Amino acid sequence: MANIYDHAYDLEKAIRNSEEFTSLKEAYEAVMNDEAAKKMFEDFRQTQVTLQQKQMQGEEISEEEVEEARKVVELVQQHPQISKLMEEEQRLNTVINDVSKIITKPLEELYGNPEEPQQ
Amino acid sequence: MANIYDHAYDLEKAIRNSEEFTSLKEAYEAVMNDEAAKKMFEDFRQTQVTLQQKQMQGEEISEEEVEEARKVVELVQQHPQISKLMEEEQRLNTVINDVSKIITKPLEELYGNPEEPQQ
Ligand SMILES: [Ca+2]
Ligand SMILES: [Ca+2]
Repeated sequence: MANIYDHAYDLEKAIRNSEEFTSLKEAYEAVMNDEAAKKMFEDFRQTQVTLQQKQMQGEEISEEEVEEARKVVELVQQHPQISKLMEEEQRLNTVINDVSKIITKPLEELYGNPEEPQQ
Repeated sequence: MANIYDHAYDLEKAIRNSEEFTSLKEAYEAVMNDEAAKKMFEDFRQTQVTLQQKQMQGEEISEEEVEEARKVVELVQQHPQISKLMEEEQRLNTVINDVSKIITKPLEELYGNPEEPQQ
């Protein structure tokens, strides 16, 4: 009989050996090995996390913070290595989301997928 | 070369055929085929969802609501078929969480797992 954990480890290995993951790894290491890029990327991530936390806690986000975040995004988008990293992250995320949808399909079928009642 | 999607579909099949999933399915159908149990279970779920939404939106939860929720939980815990269903849900959830940890390990290793800075 098929064992869930065996299949999970096979899948993990397939992800690890995939072109998507190895490209992400290369892009991540290229940024981490460049001090200026590393700092810019970490600032960007920190800004994202801070804004997300405020949003989740229903805190007000000031115009200055929005403007600051916009500038940081613009900076990283113009940085070739960081924008490459973000592209590779997006690519692997798509795969991981697909995988997640595939493996939770049995549960979705069982519980159905009714629209949330709007009110 | 190993294909991620092929392995994901194999894993999905293994989950679908697992003892954990088939037992959950049996427990779910036992509740759904009993009108009173079905209504009690749906009330319980609705209470949970409502409280979670309030919590996430930072809304106040009244003493009456807490008391009401406590009573609903007590009711479902005393119902053999519903408590069986909740047990089976917990069991499959554990497996799904394990699987999720296994397949996201490459990403965790790449990005590291630093403690969130406390402040
Ligand atoms: Ca590559
Ligand atoms: Ca069984």
